Amino acid sequence: MMERIYGSELSNYVDQKVKVAGWAHNLRRLGKVNFLTIRDVSGIFQVFLTESEAIQLDDVLPESVVEVQGIVVAEAQASGGYEIHQPEITVLSRVSEGLPFSINQPVLKAHLDTFLDYAPFGLRYPKKRALFRLSAGVMQGFRKYLDQQGFTELATPKLVESATEGGANVFAVDYFGRPAYLAQSPQFYKQIMVGVFEKVYEVAPVFRAEPHATSRHLNEYISLDVEVGFIKNHFDVMALLSHVIRAIFGHLQENYAYELGELEIDMPALPDVFPHIYFPDAQEFIYQQHQEDCRGEPDLAPQHERWLGEWAKEEYQSDFLFVTGYPMKKRPFYTHPEPENPIYSNSFDLLFRGTELVTGGQRLHLYEDYLQALKKQGISDLQLFDGYLQTFKYGMPPHGGFAIGLERLLMQLTGAPNLRETVLFPRDINRLSP
Amino acid sequence: MMERIYGSELSNYVDQKVKVAGWAHNLRRLGKVNFLTIRDVSGIFQVFLTESEAIQLDDVLPESVVEVQGIVVAEAQASGGYEIHQPEITVLSRVSEGLPFSINQPVLKAHLDTFLDYAPFGLRYPKKRALFRLSAGVMQGFRKYLDQQGFTELATPKLVESATEGGANVFAVDYFGRPAYLAQSPQFYKQIMVGVFEKVYEVAPVFRAEPHATSRHLNEYISLDVEVGFIKNHFDVMALLSHVIRAIFGHLQENYAYELGELEIDMPALPDVFPHIYFPDAQEFIYQQHQEDCRGEPDLAPQHERWLGEWAKEEYQSDFLFVTGYPMKKRPFYTHPEPENPIYSNSFDLLFRGTELVTGGQRLHLYEDYLQALKKQGISDLQLFDGYLQTFKYGMPPHGGFAIGLERLLMQLTGAPNLRETVLFPRDINRLSP
Repeated sequence: MMERIYGSELSNYVDQKVKVAGWAHNLRRLGKVNFLTIRDVSGIFQVFLTESEAIQLDDVLPESVVEVQGIVVAEAQASGGYEIHQPEITVLSRVSEGLPFSINQPVLKAHLDTFLDYAPFGLRYPKKRALFRLSAGVMQGFRKYLDQQGFTELATPKLVESATEGGANVFAVDYFGRPAYLAQSPQFYKQIMVGVFEKVYEVAPVFRAEPHATSRHLNEYISLDVEVGFIKNHFDVMALLSHVIRAIFGHLQENYAYELGELEIDMPALPDVFPHIYFPDAQEFIYQQHQEDCRGEPDLAPQHERWLGEWAKEEYQSDFLFVTGYPMKKRPFYTHPEPENPIYSNSFDLLFRGTELVTGGQRLHLYEDYLQALKKQGISDLQLFDGYLQTFKYGMPPHGGFAIGLERLLMQLTGAPNLRETVLFPRDINRLSP
Repeated sequence: MMERIYGSELSNYVDQKVKVAGWAHNLRRLGKVNFLTIRDVSGIFQVFLTESEAIQLDDVLPESVVEVQGIVVAEAQASGGYEIHQPEITVLSRVSEGLPFSINQPVLKAHLDTFLDYAPFGLRYPKKRALFRLSAGVMQGFRKYLDQQGFTELATPKLVESATEGGANVFAVDYFGRPAYLAQSPQFYKQIMVGVFEKVYEVAPVFRAEPHATSRHLNEYISLDVEVGFIKNHFDVMALLSHVIRAIFGHLQENYAYELGELEIDMPALPDVFPHIYFPDAQEFIYQQHQEDCRGEPDLAPQHERWLGEWAKEEYQSDFLFVTGYPMKKRPFYTHPEPENPIYSNSFDLLFRGTELVTGGQRLHLYEDYLQALKKQGISDLQLFDGYLQTFKYGMPPHGGFAIGLERLLMQLTGAPNLRETVLFPRDINRLSP
């Protein structure tokens, strides 16, 4: 039996008989000259059909799965330069209903909600395929760099006993009759594992029960988490993060040129050292340049971040900008204060094109500091923090880390207007399926 | 300021002053000659101390984090061949309580439950570190092979609308006041994504609410999932799985020799082609060889699997054995029947040293077959299957796949008596923390 080849391999088989297979992407009937385009894992290629050959396909609707045996012919006008002639076509799976919308046109016309309802079908649209290949490429590039640097990959539990980390936005689970929660982040576990491996990372889903329905929120998303020991302060973490970001984009350019082209992506400007600005200086800058007085506020608003992003692009030719030293009161209890001015913190956000992409910083590492920080938060039931506090009781080095939102990165990279477009099957307050 | 180096780098700095750091692993006081061993990301190395130098460490308990500056000296008796002399020691994090149990002895004496209660500390034990490095290595080897073969990595949702896939063993989640469930597997999504990418995989947690407390059950574990289109039947899936298994072990041998040695692991016997036996033949074999008549039973018992494993080892020098053709009635509704004898299925289990490691097979791919299969299960509310059925309505090729349990693989590889020993922070009916 003849082995199937991919469309991308046609050039190796000129004038030979081959077997190909895939989805009937499009049928163009022009009379004497007709073309069936087929979509397989490698891309799209075409089959030339005479009038009588085309008639056989009258009842084969788009997306039917077909197997074709035929002769490979060099044809300058075919995309890729080759096409298949004298086809014998077998239908492996026949579609008998019209499609919800077209996926064989250059532009996808479905409204986002319709698209998401029909995602199992709609994701076959070539630009969507390219996007989710890039998504896989980001995870690959992230892991590859960290593996090379001696980091150990973790798989930490997503079912946790208590909602200790960050307030009320957790999903509750019925765990054999008692309450459990879905992890909002692997924060506690990655710190614990710095005590074991020094350098760790995890790529895994996180769950946030935020009852918002904005274009920038998801209730389940993929977090690229890193934590590293023996740092001096948050600037060491920022240096590591800059390397990781550069490695991710380098990996995409090297391995995903086709997808970057298909999506017409403007690769970000990545200077050797990402610029940084101290939080109060950023507020002063905004006041001076944009006459908006946010000095003394504990956080930056989205418009502030956009202004800062524009400034970094103009001043440093950089699509990335670190803002350092956010006020302690807006940061979680494990954040390390700035030693010289403890109302500020050894933490940072990384803005990508004027939007927060990454949050990170140095953490507390001394047991007594944790006891004090929890007390300051008004937390008296330390039993819930048992496993976490154990780590610090038994010796922890200065350490820090960060978390990159996979979908947020793709959104900023591709210019998608809605975060839901960057995840296969989004979960939000209204959507739990497909 | 001097840059920190790792213990594994000492040989590059003989007779030079260096800075190292890590956890005080052990202090051996012998009088005039004393040794502090330090554990860092790279392993364990030693610092030589005179009597007066050792006195400084009187109040430094094990697991304190220390930074040491000193001179590197070649010393044949030191592990690794080098040690540090004339140390200046700084304590970065002081431990002031005794440890729950020793992690600096060759054998760990803690009972499993005690160990798990103190896992954040106990995982620092060198053999545990080696085990979880291997765990990361298995994920790496799995992804590396599939990436090379053109597979696309997925990130599918873990919050799902209905417990459609397999009965009652699902965890319920309160999703903004309505019910949701934790995914028991990415089965439906990986099939859907074969319609998009043909070849897909995912490494992610799965959740099973099985109310058992045996040494072989976990309620959350990592599943290595693969699904591939355009197969002939389950034998194509088995061939792919054999390559994946060989690639994983090859990757470990190439990159994790230290860890395999530390754990004294017997690498499995991996013939070029894994042997296979047809389900009814396996039952006949058991009857003939072991006088136990299980012919006609719908499944194999653990003892049956052990006998088959022994036979594969003896007869084929293989630690792996495929059992093919399990009866349809014990397989999920999407399983493809055996065309010639449809009470059996085009499915398989892969036994590793006499225990089931992988389940897989060919799936149904025609829309009408799904409608019939669901009807046969007595399922009339097809709305719950909307997204899944969409995939088949709009054209799907013959396809199949499998799922490897990461922890099960490590358990069989290391000979661990309990599955809980192969996961960082196990979840079972009694344990939700740390």
